[in-house]
Amino acid sequence: MSPIQLPESREDAVLLDRADPLASRRDLFALPPDVTYLVGHSLGPAAHSALQRVQDAAARDWADGLVRSWNSAGWIDLPARVGARLAELIGARSHEVVVCDSVTVNLFKLAVSTLPLAGHRSIAVCEDEFPTDRYIAKGMAEHLDIPVDIYRRKDEPAVLAKGGVVLKSAVHFRDGLVADMTADEAVVAASGGVIIWDLSHATGVMDLALNNAGARFAVGCTYKYLNGGPGAPSFLYAREDVADRLRTPLPGWLGHAEPFAFAAEYEPAEGVARFVAGTPNILSLAALDGALDAFDGVSLGDLRHKAMALGALCVSRAEAMGLQIQCPADPADRGGHVSLSHPDGYAVVQALAADGILADFRTPTTIRFGFSPLFISHTEVWDMMDRLQNILDNRLWDRPEFKHRQKVT
Amino acid sequence: MSPIQLPESREDAVLLDRADPLASRRDLFALPPDVTYLVGHSLGPAAHSALQRVQDAAARDWADGLVRSWNSAGWIDLPARVGARLAELIGARSHEVVVCDSVTVNLFKLAVSTLPLAGHRSIAVCEDEFPTDRYIAKGMAEHLDIPVDIYRRKDEPAVLAKGGVVLKSAVHFRDGLVADMTADEAVVAASGGVIIWDLSHATGVMDLALNNAGARFAVGCTYKYLNGGPGAPSFLYAREDVADRLRTPLPGWLGHAEPFAFAAEYEPAEGVARFVAGTPNILSLAALDGALDAFDGVSLGDLRHKAMALGALCVSRAEAMGLQIQCPADPADRGGHVSLSHPDGYAVVQALAADGILADFRTPTTIRFGFSPLFISHTEVWDMMDRLQNILDNRLWDRPEFKHRQKVT
Repeated sequence: MSPIQLPESREDAVLLDRADPLASRRDLFALPPDVTYLVGHSLGPAAHSALQRVQDAAARDWADGLVRSWNSAGWIDLPARVGARLAELIGARSHEVVVCDSVTVNLFKLAVSTLPLAGHRSIAVCEDEFPTDRYIAKGMAEHLDIPVDIYRRKDEPAVLAKGGVVLKSAVHFRDGLVADMTADEAVVAASGGVIIWDLSHATGVMDLALNNAGARFAVGCTYKYLNGGPGAPSFLYAREDVADRLRTPLPGWLGHAEPFAFAAEYEPAEGVARFVAGTPNILSLAALDGALDAFDGVSLGDLRHKAMALGALCVSRAEAMGLQIQCPADPADRGGHVSLSHPDGYAVVQALAADGILADFRTPTTIRFGFSPLFISHTEVWDMMDRLQNILDNRLWDRPEFKHRQKVT
Repeated sequence: MSPIQLPESREDAVLLDRADPLASRRDLFALPPDVTYLVGHSLGPAAHSALQRVQDAAARDWADGLVRSWNSAGWIDLPARVGARLAELIGARSHEVVVCDSVTVNLFKLAVSTLPLAGHRSIAVCEDEFPTDRYIAKGMAEHLDIPVDIYRRKDEPAVLAKGGVVLKSAVHFRDGLVADMTADEAVVAASGGVIIWDLSHATGVMDLALNNAGARFAVGCTYKYLNGGPGAPSFLYAREDVADRLRTPLPGWLGHAEPFAFAAEYEPAEGVARFVAGTPNILSLAALDGALDAFDGVSLGDLRHKAMALGALCVSRAEAMGLQIQCPADPADRGGHVSLSHPDGYAVVQALAADGILADFRTPTTIRFGFSPLFISHTEVWDMMDRLQNILDNRLWDRPEFKHRQKVT
């Protein structure tokens, strides 16, 4: 990978955009012209192809095709077909990924079904992991009566070396820290444990290589950097050599080897297909399928490189402004988002929004910017940082309307 | 409820349609003009309002509103708001229903979380229930190490009298048999057990009155008679006096009392809102929300009466043709679909489809017709039965192209 170049002027940023192999992808998105969208790590924007696929799925396949579309429009295979497309973005084989249900539900399926493979029946998760991961671990412990370890980050090496099931993010939701998947997998290979990777903040912005890293199990979100749409279904990965050993705790009719036989006994479908439980949300799946068109032919190395470069630009200018950086200093240790801290972070985010710059805020003081490499340019980040400087220098955030909190930010 | 009238001629059927309070609802649906759609029990058709809502949710709320739509378009409350609309169709209070995930997943949530309320930790389901219900029961038994009883239909009274959790359909998916909810609930009220009602084949076609019947827990499908769209999310009902006692096995971030606090400890949201686990599929939820417009102001008594009348017309003519009836003889004992049997049922269904009459087939010999009262008329059923008679009398089904099986029917 070529070294990260930091622009020292707006002209530098323009030159970097000219040389950017992903620059033309911006036109694939239906972004409002007056918006700088730095919340792709929360909800990715709509690609034109995603909007078209939803429209086709609704007005053509459903309204005209009706129930026939399970065959004629290939709805029945959509979880596997979209899974195969996703596999390319995470370094998996096409038949190792399936798309269905939410991250919450898929985490549960994998966590429960990998317990027999993990040396001993226990579940562990870091105390500062995404809430759902912690809640699922605790819920499992309660309902299955197994030990749960909510460990401190510094204790992670010892936890991995103990065996059992560990839920872990490939990119941390708050500080963006990138895990060393290969090293962690080597530890659990020795301990007999299992890691279930949560790729929610990594997919679409990292050059993930699950097979090569030795990763066996993962789930991930598709509505962040993959731009699958609000609440788009999650994906689930299980490596081919272990998938057939898993007994899902959520055996649904569509995960059966022969769903339309309506057999008395549950016989799991081959591989990850067993994890398709109930009938999949076709409209949401169609949107995701269309969204993935924007990734066709993209090099994961290019994605990763650009995300690092945009983040580095933001961090270097934020440091110059005296802002507190809440993420790793080295771009190689950071995913696609950057977290800064400001005592009035909420109001600062609102002041940016008033200028059409959308970022997000996390309590108590965190400002997060997501740098989706498919549609954000170096120039946009440069201009945004100019604007941020102006807001801070002139205390433009210090207005009552910027301090009034909404339910969701 | 007024008595069921059986037309003796096509003219009689036309007269019944003229007097039908639901007749005008047909225009609310985007049904192709050349199709008689008798598969509303499998996948309901698209209402114009559903298509419009999907389009608005995608092209306006997502593409233009972006992440702001969680507030501005009310996405965050959609599971509860759509749940409140659904509550009216099942005789529940507006805050007792939430929409999220699939029937499979919701059955699991309720079955696991009601175990502590059921006298003893056991799960039971009839051997001829819908496969998912049986698979979930067996999967729970395996993973939670509790006894499972896959009982025969004749043994049901004894099973209900024993306590434990029982999964039971309000309308049977195969033969359409209607359960006596009030009587069954009286039995479990005495035994200390719990029934989780599967309303998948009942909602939108029965005059359900869950509160009045004493029902405390239910799940249901929304893409059948409710016309929510392919794989539309399921609903979950828990009566207000017991909902707060349930610990979900799938605690997700959005079922937390304060989702955006990202708290270390899971604290369930009030009532059924705790069962919203992960981020809901907004596009699929929007379609369902739009679909429910077609039910605005509908009397459940009218729905039920018309479904019974259409089914009775079909059954009486099928009997006259000598077809084997696989459902209860009395319309009061039958839900919205009718099951007939023919040795070459598959080919007969294909022959009907060639004439634009869509029905469905279930192995080995079952032909199912669903009579959705919002868009099927007495005249359509009369004409369809004429056509069926012609196909049978002249063995029009006996052609190779009608015998070639597709994956899904």
